[in-house]
Amino acid sequence: MSERDNGPLWGGRFGTTPAEAFERLNASIPFDARLAPYDIRGSIAHARMLGERGIVSGEEAAELERGLRAVLEEVEGGRFSWTLSDEDVHTAVERRLREIVGDVALKLHTGRSRNDQVALDLHLFVRDAAERMGEALLAVMRAIVEVAEANRDLVLPGYTHLQRAQPILLSHHLLAHFRAFERDLTRLRMAREAASASPLGAAALGGTPHPVEPALTAKTLGMEPLLNSLDAVSERDFALDLLYAAAVLGIHLSRLGEEWVLWTSAEFGFARLSDAYSSGSSIMPQKKNPDAYELMRGKAGRLVGNLTALLVTLKGLPLGYQKDLQEDKEPIFDSVDAVLAVLAVLPEMLRTATFDGERMANAAGGFALATELADFLAARGVPFREAHRAVGRLVRRCEEAGLPFEEVPEDELVAAHPALADLPRELLTPKGSVANKSSPGSTSPDSVDAQLARARGLLRELEEASAG
Amino acid sequence: MSERDNGPLWGGRFGTTPAEAFERLNASIPFDARLAPYDIRGSIAHARMLGERGIVSGEEAAELERGLRAVLEEVEGGRFSWTLSDEDVHTAVERRLREIVGDVALKLHTGRSRNDQVALDLHLFVRDAAERMGEALLAVMRAIVEVAEANRDLVLPGYTHLQRAQPILLSHHLLAHFRAFERDLTRLRMAREAASASPLGAAALGGTPHPVEPALTAKTLGMEPLLNSLDAVSERDFALDLLYAAAVLGIHLSRLGEEWVLWTSAEFGFARLSDAYSSGSSIMPQKKNPDAYELMRGKAGRLVGNLTALLVTLKGLPLGYQKDLQEDKEPIFDSVDAVLAVLAVLPEMLRTATFDGERMANAAGGFALATELADFLAARGVPFREAHRAVGRLVRRCEEAGLPFEEVPEDELVAAHPALADLPRELLTPKGSVANKSSPGSTSPDSVDAQLARARGLLRELEEASAG
Amino acid sequence: MSERDNGPLWGGRFGTTPAEAFERLNASIPFDARLAPYDIRGSIAHARMLGERGIVSGEEAAELERGLRAVLEEVEGGRFSWTLSDEDVHTAVERRLREIVGDVALKLHTGRSRNDQVALDLHLFVRDAAERMGEALLAVMRAIVEVAEANRDLVLPGYTHLQRAQPILLSHHLLAHFRAFERDLTRLRMAREAASASPLGAAALGGTPHPVEPALTAKTLGMEPLLNSLDAVSERDFALDLLYAAAVLGIHLSRLGEEWVLWTSAEFGFARLSDAYSSGSSIMPQKKNPDAYELMRGKAGRLVGNLTALLVTLKGLPLGYQKDLQEDKEPIFDSVDAVLAVLAVLPEMLRTATFDGERMANAAGGFALATELADFLAARGVPFREAHRAVGRLVRRCEEAGLPFEEVPEDELVAAHPALADLPRELLTPKGSVANKSSPGSTSPDSVDAQLARARGLLRELEEASAG
Amino acid sequence: MSERDNGPLWGGRFGTTPAEAFERLNASIPFDARLAPYDIRGSIAHARMLGERGIVSGEEAAELERGLRAVLEEVEGGRFSWTLSDEDVHTAVERRLREIVGDVALKLHTGRSRNDQVALDLHLFVRDAAERMGEALLAVMRAIVEVAEANRDLVLPGYTHLQRAQPILLSHHLLAHFRAFERDLTRLRMAREAASASPLGAAALGGTPHPVEPALTAKTLGMEPLLNSLDAVSERDFALDLLYAAAVLGIHLSRLGEEWVLWTSAEFGFARLSDAYSSGSSIMPQKKNPDAYELMRGKAGRLVGNLTALLVTLKGLPLGYQKDLQEDKEPIFDSVDAVLAVLAVLPEMLRTATFDGERMANAAGGFALATELADFLAARGVPFREAHRAVGRLVRRCEEAGLPFEEVPEDELVAAHPALADLPRELLTPKGSVANKSSPGSTSPDSVDAQLARARGLLRELEEASAG
Repeated sequence: MSERDNGPLWGGRFGTTPAEAFERLNASIPFDARLAPYDIRGSIAHARMLGERGIVSGEEAAELERGLRAVLEEVEGGRFSWTLSDEDVHTAVERRLREIVGDVALKLHTGRSRNDQVALDLHLFVRDAAERMGEALLAVMRAIVEVAEANRDLVLPGYTHLQRAQPILLSHHLLAHFRAFERDLTRLRMAREAASASPLGAAALGGTPHPVEPALTAKTLGMEPLLNSLDAVSERDFALDLLYAAAVLGIHLSRLGEEWVLWTSAEFGFARLSDAYSSGSSIMPQKKNPDAYELMRGKAGRLVGNLTALLVTLKGLPLGYQKDLQEDKEPIFDSVDAVLAVLAVLPEMLRTATFDGERMANAAGGFALATELADFLAARGVPFREAHRAVGRLVRRCEEAGLPFEEVPEDELVAAHPALADLPRELLTPKGSVANKSSPGSTSPDSVDAQLARARGLLRELEEASAG
Repeated sequence: MSERDNGPLWGGRFGTTPAEAFERLNASIPFDARLAPYDIRGSIAHARMLGERGIVSGEEAAELERGLRAVLEEVEGGRFSWTLSDEDVHTAVERRLREIVGDVALKLHTGRSRNDQVALDLHLFVRDAAERMGEALLAVMRAIVEVAEANRDLVLPGYTHLQRAQPILLSHHLLAHFRAFERDLTRLRMAREAASASPLGAAALGGTPHPVEPALTAKTLGMEPLLNSLDAVSERDFALDLLYAAAVLGIHLSRLGEEWVLWTSAEFGFARLSDAYSSGSSIMPQKKNPDAYELMRGKAGRLVGNLTALLVTLKGLPLGYQKDLQEDKEPIFDSVDAVLAVLAVLPEMLRTATFDGERMANAAGGFALATELADFLAARGVPFREAHRAVGRLVRRCEEAGLPFEEVPEDELVAAHPALADLPRELLTPKGSVANKSSPGSTSPDSVDAQLARARGLLRELEEASAG
Repeated sequence: MSERDNGPLWGGRFGTTPAEAFERLNASIPFDARLAPYDIRGSIAHARMLGERGIVSGEEAAELERGLRAVLEEVEGGRFSWTLSDEDVHTAVERRLREIVGDVALKLHTGRSRNDQVALDLHLFVRDAAERMGEALLAVMRAIVEVAEANRDLVLPGYTHLQRAQPILLSHHLLAHFRAFERDLTRLRMAREAASASPLGAAALGGTPHPVEPALTAKTLGMEPLLNSLDAVSERDFALDLLYAAAVLGIHLSRLGEEWVLWTSAEFGFARLSDAYSSGSSIMPQKKNPDAYELMRGKAGRLVGNLTALLVTLKGLPLGYQKDLQEDKEPIFDSVDAVLAVLAVLPEMLRTATFDGERMANAAGGFALATELADFLAARGVPFREAHRAVGRLVRRCEEAGLPFEEVPEDELVAAHPALADLPRELLTPKGSVANKSSPGSTSPDSVDAQLARARGLLRELEEASAG
Repeated sequence: MSERDNGPLWGGRFGTTPAEAFERLNASIPFDARLAPYDIRGSIAHARMLGERGIVSGEEAAELERGLRAVLEEVEGGRFSWTLSDEDVHTAVERRLREIVGDVALKLHTGRSRNDQVALDLHLFVRDAAERMGEALLAVMRAIVEVAEANRDLVLPGYTHLQRAQPILLSHHLLAHFRAFERDLTRLRMAREAASASPLGAAALGGTPHPVEPALTAKTLGMEPLLNSLDAVSERDFALDLLYAAAVLGIHLSRLGEEWVLWTSAEFGFARLSDAYSSGSSIMPQKKNPDAYELMRGKAGRLVGNLTALLVTLKGLPLGYQKDLQEDKEPIFDSVDAVLAVLAVLPEMLRTATFDGERMANAAGGFALATELADFLAARGVPFREAHRAVGRLVRRCEEAGLPFEEVPEDELVAAHPALADLPRELLTPKGSVANKSSPGSTSPDSVDAQLARARGLLRELEEASAG
């Protein structure tokens, strides 16, 4: 695509009409129509710059802007009519602009090409998408903090190999996901920054003899100006960065989804979803299918697939505009839509779920407390192996005797190891075990309080930043 | 999804209305509407079986079939109206069926569940898609044979490392792609066969107490009946097989596309596209952009991405129906559409292109003929290394003297190696080099004729098979 | 890589020594050394053909074969010494061959190039790998049948959305995996067939003037001869086919692995692994980590990644040999190794695991039996919705009254729906529910017996085929 | 993996020996041995903290550190002997440490688990790898600047659709790649920062009752301490970030590689590689295969594949340590090795290549200058369409008359459009066209000088930062 390659112009010169199937294959309008608002905003910035630099007159610039705003209103009001023969969103907008303002519309081309225009549109879309995804993620993080606070003291097992390993606070568990989402915010911010580089001024690929001022258009759009025109029309790193941020977020969501599918199973029974966020069965009223969590897990597929798609498309392309780049849009649209659809559901779904604290606590007790004893002995100077051997023996005794570990009698403790005589019995409870942790970042109530305070502070900061 | 999980029924029991965002996330109707014709055909087969097995009366079966055919007509005529509240295509079809035939519509549920129904729909879609892709590919292969026949004697360089290596016939080159497409046909056939296994009879996952006869529905649909009901609702191998077939085909097309982008560049100048299949420039009328070949190359991205997507979605899913499986449709739809769009353009684009035989021949001459001499010497018993050294010397001499290799004088030949005295001069031409090849499968005219005969025979066979 | 591009020859001509880092990057010997046995077997077939066609004398052919067998022995005996300066496996083998048989070794080059040679080696490796993977998979399938037979009557819940849906036989569940592995066998067979096409005779890319006979070498190697020389050196479809077969198998194994991780958790408690196939904890002797099942699940990553890798590498490559193709080997080696490592563990791990039939049966009871009642009513002509509503009411009553569903009193049944008066009570047991299924392919004992008989027959057939 | 799950301890308790195949599958020592130096450095930091916090005595801490340094020396000196029975690198190091310092070695376990230890090792490896990759990339960027400066005035065509579009400076083209690599540096820096978070203190997953101080160990290692222990052992985002940075870098390198493959082809003939960085042919001495550029292009496959692999492995994993995570190492090792191997070759390969300025300039002339005329007319107020039509006519005339566009006579210019009478003839030369560009970031010599100055400044800055 280039300044000179625009449909209406070259169409007439060809001896034959482009075959219909070719036209259909070539046209991007069925999917890039949603770029129209970005296309128009970019054109407004360009028109202003043309006026300020005297490339068009002040009146012409004003006329172009007026026309573009009219088209924007039509688009946003859903009154714009698209046709396949427009081929792409730029042609469609220009056609309409010309209908409104007449031939001055053609001056909008000056110092610009399809190549930098299409690149700009996608930059603007990606920047906007990164922001929207970030805000939707913030809403999830707020919900996590709320749910963690409301259930701060519930205990459930921490798992290794899906085997119960030791008790942790549910709030601590939820805050682990909060941390993952924090890193997702960083990735989205990086994608946003990468997208904030305006390619305008690159024209077809080498810049233009017209005295354009890329810094002006960039400033109007809140972006940085290009540094190398060939790079500006050739690169799609910002698009990859967004797809990557979405893919990793998708992996995080799949892990969260998996956990909720487990937690809401009859076997775990740790949590129940609200009716509003589950589907059910007409004959098993108690059954609640965690559809949204399954979809959240399943959508990791397309999010990884879309990243792969663009990487493959870009592989081996020489610099300059290649039509292959038209394939950059759909994976982005699809990933953004998928992420936003999931994130729209998640906060309220988290908030309206209920937990079965007793069931979680029960699962977190028993032999999941054995480590606590070993740590107790180790802290008393009992050599590591001796401590492990002693606790292992004790566990086996309880198992053989069918004794709940929490109720192991004093004499068995001492028999296992004399130093266990001093064991505070509360260490043999999930809550006691959790409270006994002392390291910063651990699952101890103090650590969780600190994490919650930090999380609330971070949210406040981010909200202010996004409001400001 | 299961027999008991259908929207209209459970909807009412829940205390609160499902949140709107959840409903939107959950609904598949925006994309699975296109499964409607397959859904209805599957239901017709099911209704007939219910009648034949006496599970519903003959009249009821007939009534169901009549109603379903009416819905099918509405769908195919574009008169069916879809709403998001239908949630999925099955609900939509059932709703309409009930409007037409009344409560007998509810009997269609007997011995069937959403789980086997949705699996069947996708099987039918994939089978159909594999056929359509195969036919579209056959059209490409026919075009290749025609173009190869029409240009049988044109010579171009064969390349290694994109360095000219030795002359080959253009027809031989084209037939290399024919061979790749043959293997694609095999993959499509495998996907078709994999899709030809009816999951009907699996019900939710364990089969049904109703005396259904899976072999009957399968036969009506031209399929094999299920062997294990849990597998039947859990597996999506047939979908993967189609996505894989599309991905490899996409890689093949990307390689073909790359070659045409090279061939139509000014630097190669081997071929020109018809105006109907290229885009141009208003100020450079001679310029023809190979858009379709670039898109063909670029679309490998989404084809690989879609395969990745479904693999990721399926990873780690326990057997049984999981909502994650709803993510199986869109990658398939997208890959099928992409492949068909490209294949629709390719045959005529190949046929209408023109070749610059002289330019290709020139590129295939010169030092690209050096191997021929080494082979000539080797065939005369000159040891390998000696032959290579001699020809290397000769090439260097020509280069230094600025002599075209084809015009190297007799004495230089002999100076390089005495055995070159007998060299037939036609070996020093691209055509002569090509004609000198003798091995079956080589680029020699005889071999190419044999390949063309075989290709024509194969096409005839496949056409008869697909007509029969 | 081509006939003329062999290291020892061109090395000397260059003005400067290749930079060390370049040499390291370029060399494939660190990983392709394992192709040596295939390389040598291909060379033996080539040498014989050269002799039979009179291209070399009978004595020379014999001498070449003798030398090659000597090298093969050294390789297989681990006595072959590899050096980086050999660059690739072909050079290494030739070097050693020449040390053994002298200059006649150079004649092995005749009518062959590195391009068809390296392609042949990989074909042979892939064919062999497909066979070994198939055999390893057969061993898994045998174990599945044995375990299914030994535990034919155990009942566990079938799940939808990981919610208990209805009872199924454990043997039925295991046989669902058997079916998936059957399809994997088909894919491995396809890869094997795709690999059974000998590229010998293609030489560099266009064939050769030497009177070689590709059908002869192909026959010696149990392969089909090439049909198009350019395709033969350019395509890697057979490699993709193997990587794809491995990726889908990997997905199947990840699903099986996920289930076992669930089954061996404290929450499910359906199965216990043998000590020999799990890792444990020194202080929780009862804890058994299902490491191998987790690795089986995790290895889906590299299996999908390797497929993606080769697809990406091939994307956009023009035909002919490109050095990019050197990247084809490592993903294959890695996938084959990963699959074989997992399959080596699986059969015995399955056989030595034990099931907690009582726990499974308990989980399969209760409300998971509700569907059975609805089906019972439906079979008695009660309209679908009415049946569902009645059973839903009953379930709710039991839940409120804290009544196990299996023990619901007669009067409650009748109150829910009069037609339930006739309900055989065994339908309210997992075994009764399973036995009540009647459709072919269902989880009913009869169906499972039929499946087991078929499975045993199939295994016998495949074993005979592989032995024969 | 957890504190309690270490081989030597639990090994003895099991009734049977772990099956050999299981041990082989389970062992990571064959690949994670290369983590040893990182493992030891992490242990040294941990030992010091234990001493400072009084968890072990000062003498014990010193003894542990002494022993660890001795092991490190053995590892770095290649004198360490690894055995499969060590299972993983941590066990191997501990075994050796105990041999050296005796039972105090067991105290190193205190307040630490395999889970946080293995996570730390990978963090340290990734951080180091990101730095090394960044430095290697800086060397490439330096070479680009040097080559751009040395060839600042060479002109070649800028391409769209691989059709010559307009002249650009080679230096501008090279600097486009510089820009891409700048963004790669940002990604590598992000990966480095992500990896700079120490998981120590997380222990198995919930922290520890021992009074450890994560901030101390983190500080010793130049890292940030953990914030949530569960997240710390569960997440592999930093590993994904590195794999992603490597994948995008790989895509950039594939595009550069493609261009050099084109440039060094006979058809383009823009550049020649040094003998030291190409492979050749014994019979075509002038032939130079751009192997390294092809491998650079091909390796994009494994770089994308490795990213996919880890994404797939992580998909759907619940938090906590799962054995699946053992699959995180090999894709990282492979990507790091591949990137470093390519980057080691690139700088000198760029520096030693030579350009054919005349050939490039010729390709950049002719109709590639037509845009210049249209821009000239537009700048003179000629309406866009009129300008395009006029230039199109002129191009066609020249083509028909066989006139080089540069030599079009005055009267033809005026005939095409009167305003062309004033055309400065130098605009009809590649250099004149390039010089006529005026926009910042364009290919004009001024812009390129500014870019070069900025690039040099940036390199200086980064070198100082990395030295400081």
